[in-house]
Amino acid sequence: MTTIDIPADSLFGIDNLPYGVFSVDGDSPRVGVRVGGSVVDLAEALGDDVFAAPTLNPFMAQGYDRWVAVRERIRDLVAGEVPDGAVHAIERVTPHLPIEVADYVDFYASEHHASNVGRLFRPDAEPLLPNWKHLPVGYHGRSGTVLVSGTDIVRPSGQRKAPAEAAPVFGPSTRLDIEAEMGFIVGTGTPLNTPITPDSFPRHVFGAVLLNDWSARDIQAWEYVPLGPHLGKSFATSISPWVVPILALEAARIPLPGQTDPKPLPYLRESDPWGLDIDLSIAWNGEEVSRPPFREMYWSPAQMLAHLTVNGASSRTGDLYGSGTISGPEKHQRGAFLELSWGGKEPLTVKGEERTFLQDGDEVVITGSAPGANGSRIGFGEVRGRVLPSN
Amino acid sequence: MTTIDIPADSLFGIDNLPYGVFSVDGDSPRVGVRVGGSVVDLAEALGDDVFAAPTLNPFMAQGYDRWVAVRERIRDLVAGEVPDGAVHAIERVTPHLPIEVADYVDFYASEHHASNVGRLFRPDAEPLLPNWKHLPVGYHGRSGTVLVSGTDIVRPSGQRKAPAEAAPVFGPSTRLDIEAEMGFIVGTGTPLNTPITPDSFPRHVFGAVLLNDWSARDIQAWEYVPLGPHLGKSFATSISPWVVPILALEAARIPLPGQTDPKPLPYLRESDPWGLDIDLSIAWNGEEVSRPPFREMYWSPAQMLAHLTVNGASSRTGDLYGSGTISGPEKHQRGAFLELSWGGKEPLTVKGEERTFLQDGDEVVITGSAPGANGSRIGFGEVRGRVLPSN
Repeated sequence: MTTIDIPADSLFGIDNLPYGVFSVDGDSPRVGVRVGGSVVDLAEALGDDVFAAPTLNPFMAQGYDRWVAVRERIRDLVAGEVPDGAVHAIERVTPHLPIEVADYVDFYASEHHASNVGRLFRPDAEPLLPNWKHLPVGYHGRSGTVLVSGTDIVRPSGQRKAPAEAAPVFGPSTRLDIEAEMGFIVGTGTPLNTPITPDSFPRHVFGAVLLNDWSARDIQAWEYVPLGPHLGKSFATSISPWVVPILALEAARIPLPGQTDPKPLPYLRESDPWGLDIDLSIAWNGEEVSRPPFREMYWSPAQMLAHLTVNGASSRTGDLYGSGTISGPEKHQRGAFLELSWGGKEPLTVKGEERTFLQDGDEVVITGSAPGANGSRIGFGEVRGRVLPSN
Repeated sequence: MTTIDIPADSLFGIDNLPYGVFSVDGDSPRVGVRVGGSVVDLAEALGDDVFAAPTLNPFMAQGYDRWVAVRERIRDLVAGEVPDGAVHAIERVTPHLPIEVADYVDFYASEHHASNVGRLFRPDAEPLLPNWKHLPVGYHGRSGTVLVSGTDIVRPSGQRKAPAEAAPVFGPSTRLDIEAEMGFIVGTGTPLNTPITPDSFPRHVFGAVLLNDWSARDIQAWEYVPLGPHLGKSFATSISPWVVPILALEAARIPLPGQTDPKPLPYLRESDPWGLDIDLSIAWNGEEVSRPPFREMYWSPAQMLAHLTVNGASSRTGDLYGSGTISGPEKHQRGAFLELSWGGKEPLTVKGEERTFLQDGDEVVITGSAPGANGSRIGFGEVRGRVLPSN
């Protein structure tokens, strides 16, 4: 038996306890929990086969009461002695995609981001479209290309057309970008015609991850009318491997910045709002270029799920939805290079080199943390990706 | 042992042999093939456990050579004697969703449909947007709400806003519509960064179904800018239960109506086009109101898959993509009630009653057939759905 040493200021203390799927030395992937600098093999430590699965889905499907009970068991476990074979140093484990993704939806819930994009793409019009403050605008993305952090991103190819050109050309994207987002994972859904209210968010949503919605702006600009983004996004979406339980985020809850003009329709109203005080950081080739504040989001993740299901659509274990790019009011809080470089017109200096969009070999790492219980701070780990040249 | 009597003019003769998933008297769902008025239980008849699965996915994942070989074995089987217990009358079986849907994408590939919608939604502009003839426009939809024919459709609720109103209201959709489409099912996909060429379409796509993309036009009109349709579509997409193999569609192949101005980019070019001469029919409360011709589609299903994957997106067994509404040049060939009623301004008479959009209790049945080998005609069966009142 062994005890796990958790430094007092660890981002992975007993008030966090994020779940993931890991393997060691090529063994089969299985469920673990990250504690301090260690990963605890839960099938081994708790003797429960649901954690021997290669995704979190079977455990998530067991529902809210089990999530609460298992979290208590893990707290007790790591406070005492853990079987030696169940503890692995974090640097020895290989993280895997933690969930089997069912449907993936991406929202657009930052007012600052939506306004910036509106100014860039429609300079002569109101930056926010008329529906934006009435509903969390969102659309479905490709669940089959949700990738775990660390997966290299091959530069996508596609059609693009400059405004002055008569016809599109085909080739590797020249405006490859990121979008720093939070992702929310449905643990237990509802059948058809059973909408989820905002207040029942924590009973249905299991946890949260960092999400990078890689975006090829040139492909997207040409293709997106009238049915929305497709190939400009569908090549890759990366998520962090450690799923922070919603149960760990109680201390991070804050009011939303304000939904008074207009007031949302009743189905979107929360009695106790799910604004979340999560700080993100974006590092480009190792240099921090932005600190997007999730607390500035206009719509909460509870409102997003309520909207998703209000038309009668069913939801499932493994559904993933992204918040949309997180941008704050300040320039250094913008969550996409499109905004940071103002459409490519204002290059950034990154490690002494000028950058607008991503070059081959560039690496982006998004990290995040939030207040936890008992004065702790809880970490989301990182979502990392490096750009490889087009095939 | 028994022999299966197949009338000479059957739409389900030995040149069709569509696969589905069925159950009898509450037994577990399993794979069958529809032959004449019968369904043959393939696990029972062939003694192969891959057909004891509750979806076609395990069989589809075995790949093209197996699809060819099994089709030959089934032809031999039904030409001779079949074990008694393996044959069920079609009216005794309950059809199930034949596939586990991975990602679902919906295209917009009928020039007549896209032009009609453009005229209705943007009366003062060119009906086709500039990208439309350069790429098959499409977007991701909700795979979790793909339903088998016969599932009732509860009228969805959502936000809608009339142009003259200051703010949206919430309530049951008042403009519930259909879209008559063909759906194509990927049998074996490719990993990341391995685009599928149009010419390899039949090695990757297993089969085709009829598809009804139920659409709430009022919800869609308010929500769809700038990221495309979402809740106006995500409540339900129905498909026919019998998957017609692409191997059965050789005799239905025809040239496309013409892609000369502009000529598609090289990645979209087919050496032998996959236009398909499929006739559809839409019955509204039992009265035929339209005969959409798939032969009029601008983009082929092979081009759609090539486009889907050209950016490096992976594809998977069970991916489903819809053609988009099938409309021909004539009014009685339009595949959506939005077009048939010209935005609700020109009501239809259906069974003596005026109709624009769907009323509670209405039923829509879409059927289809195509030329088969040896002078036969092959049927796609039907996709049926009845509208229930909002909850």
